[in-house]
Amino acid sequence: MTETVAWMAVDWGTSNLRAWGIGASGTVTGSASSEKGMGKLSGVEFPAALAEVAARLDPSGSSLEVLICGMAGARQGWMEAPYLEAPTDLRQLGAGAVRPTMPDGTLTAAILPGVCQKQGGEDVMRGEETQLLGLAVLSPGYGGLVCMPGTHSKWALLDGTRIQRFTTAMTGELFDLLKTHSVLRHSLQGTLDGPGRDEGFSAGAQDGLDAPGDLLGRLFRVRAGALLSGREPDWCAGYLSGLLIGTEIAAHRGQIGAEPVPLIGSAPLCRLYAKVLEMDGASGRTVDATEVVLAGLKAARASME
Amino acid sequence: MTETVAWMAVDWGTSNLRAWGIGASGTVTGSASSEKGMGKLSGVEFPAALAEVAARLDPSGSSLEVLICGMAGARQGWMEAPYLEAPTDLRQLGAGAVRPTMPDGTLTAAILPGVCQKQGGEDVMRGEETQLLGLAVLSPGYGGLVCMPGTHSKWALLDGTRIQRFTTAMTGELFDLLKTHSVLRHSLQGTLDGPGRDEGFSAGAQDGLDAPGDLLGRLFRVRAGALLSGREPDWCAGYLSGLLIGTEIAAHRGQIGAEPVPLIGSAPLCRLYAKVLEMDGASGRTVDATEVVLAGLKAARASME
Repeated sequence: MTETVAWMAVDWGTSNLRAWGIGASGTVTGSASSEKGMGKLSGVEFPAALAEVAARLDPSGSSLEVLICGMAGARQGWMEAPYLEAPTDLRQLGAGAVRPTMPDGTLTAAILPGVCQKQGGEDVMRGEETQLLGLAVLSPGYGGLVCMPGTHSKWALLDGTRIQRFTTAMTGELFDLLKTHSVLRHSLQGTLDGPGRDEGFSAGAQDGLDAPGDLLGRLFRVRAGALLSGREPDWCAGYLSGLLIGTEIAAHRGQIGAEPVPLIGSAPLCRLYAKVLEMDGASGRTVDATEVVLAGLKAARASME
Repeated sequence: MTETVAWMAVDWGTSNLRAWGIGASGTVTGSASSEKGMGKLSGVEFPAALAEVAARLDPSGSSLEVLICGMAGARQGWMEAPYLEAPTDLRQLGAGAVRPTMPDGTLTAAILPGVCQKQGGEDVMRGEETQLLGLAVLSPGYGGLVCMPGTHSKWALLDGTRIQRFTTAMTGELFDLLKTHSVLRHSLQGTLDGPGRDEGFSAGAQDGLDAPGDLLGRLFRVRAGALLSGREPDWCAGYLSGLLIGTEIAAHRGQIGAEPVPLIGSAPLCRLYAKVLEMDGASGRTVDATEVVLAGLKAARASME
């Protein structure tokens, strides 16, 4: 028999939302997801999108508290949850939650804030801060950089539950833009996952690590390599990916310590980052993204009780 | 009375073509342009596009020699003009010309080769090599870097008419991609040429000069600055432009000498590059792009006679 749902945890991103039923003991009773990400909803549509997912996780329809992290709390989302400002203790996330009103009384929703940085380089995050709190809870005492690869990679300097500073690298988005819209697209049409991809990736990563200040100049080598050396699309895609990741990692190498860098993201992407960290004499360890977001939401909820 | 056209000079780019009638004494008798760039034509359409422009420059319809530089000589253009390989003497361009056949006997066309680089970073250029030859002819004895800002900026190390090496920076294309397609577009909608543009440009250029290895991380500051400090679209556009140009110039600063760097490109863009060079303790001088391409085509033609 399934454990009763005591509350609901939600990670509400720009393109989709993921929700979990949590039992009284903290067990996950079930999960559900929806394509109704923040980017697709107007303000008034959030309650119905949430109710729809809740009905799947708890068909009994009993009243439930819901704790939400991510883009639902953005200014253009459901209800703005003002940023905490780094440096800050992520155990403060719960205290910063906002409570949008639901049209019926069944669900009670709270949205966690994101974190901003105003000194030492303006930056913002929404969603990642909850993953970072979860990581801090699951790896007590960890101090050092955490890397969260993705469309907009986040690099945060953690000291226990404290976030000291962070920065965003537009690596994933740039890869997609260049692949889809730039002159390099001509060299990236065809089979991108062929046998040349690994070799291209290593060459690009080495170039990025060796000359991070010359990214603008190295990008065009994808095109020149295709024209002059007949580089195939798989090699070119690997080179571009490696060049961008190598450049990103080189920008942080001065702050990478002896401990493996926790990598929070999709498993294939984390493997690529771990490989480049190793090429640079460091190392990474992949952390399950779902596990840390759940741990973060649980910790935030515990602080709100 | 207009001087008789002795031959025709053509700069045939991807998006358009520009042509000049040249008199026996070297005077420009007239100019014409067409939207029929290489990128819009299939191989068989080049002769008619050329004849159309020639008829405007020389209505007499007498037989004419035409010397062409640029993308008409690309593999996907009219007829491939195989690259010269750098390092090379640009006075060799004429000897590398190819001669496509014209359907009627009125025009006799020759297309100059581009230049490629295989050692020390694969790269290619088509069109810029002719401008560089023109610059070398107009500034005899110049040795040092030449910067050609644009969609794909070229930086070439010249020693008289000899091109030692060169590299391409995808600066202009990246600006357009980020402005049009990336998450930064949200911060770049509205009046981009407002009074905040200069201030944003200076801030971005300084960031690029200070931390060229952190371009991926600095880009997102455009978005964060709009969210946190209410930066207006003009400031954001200036910051992005400055950041990219500052990063590009920083990558070359080790090779910039005491002499002003010749800047070949559009006047407004050259002014921005000159400003950032000055911020970095160097200087630039704008060179008229039409003047050098004409000088290059004339020098190449003289070598072919």
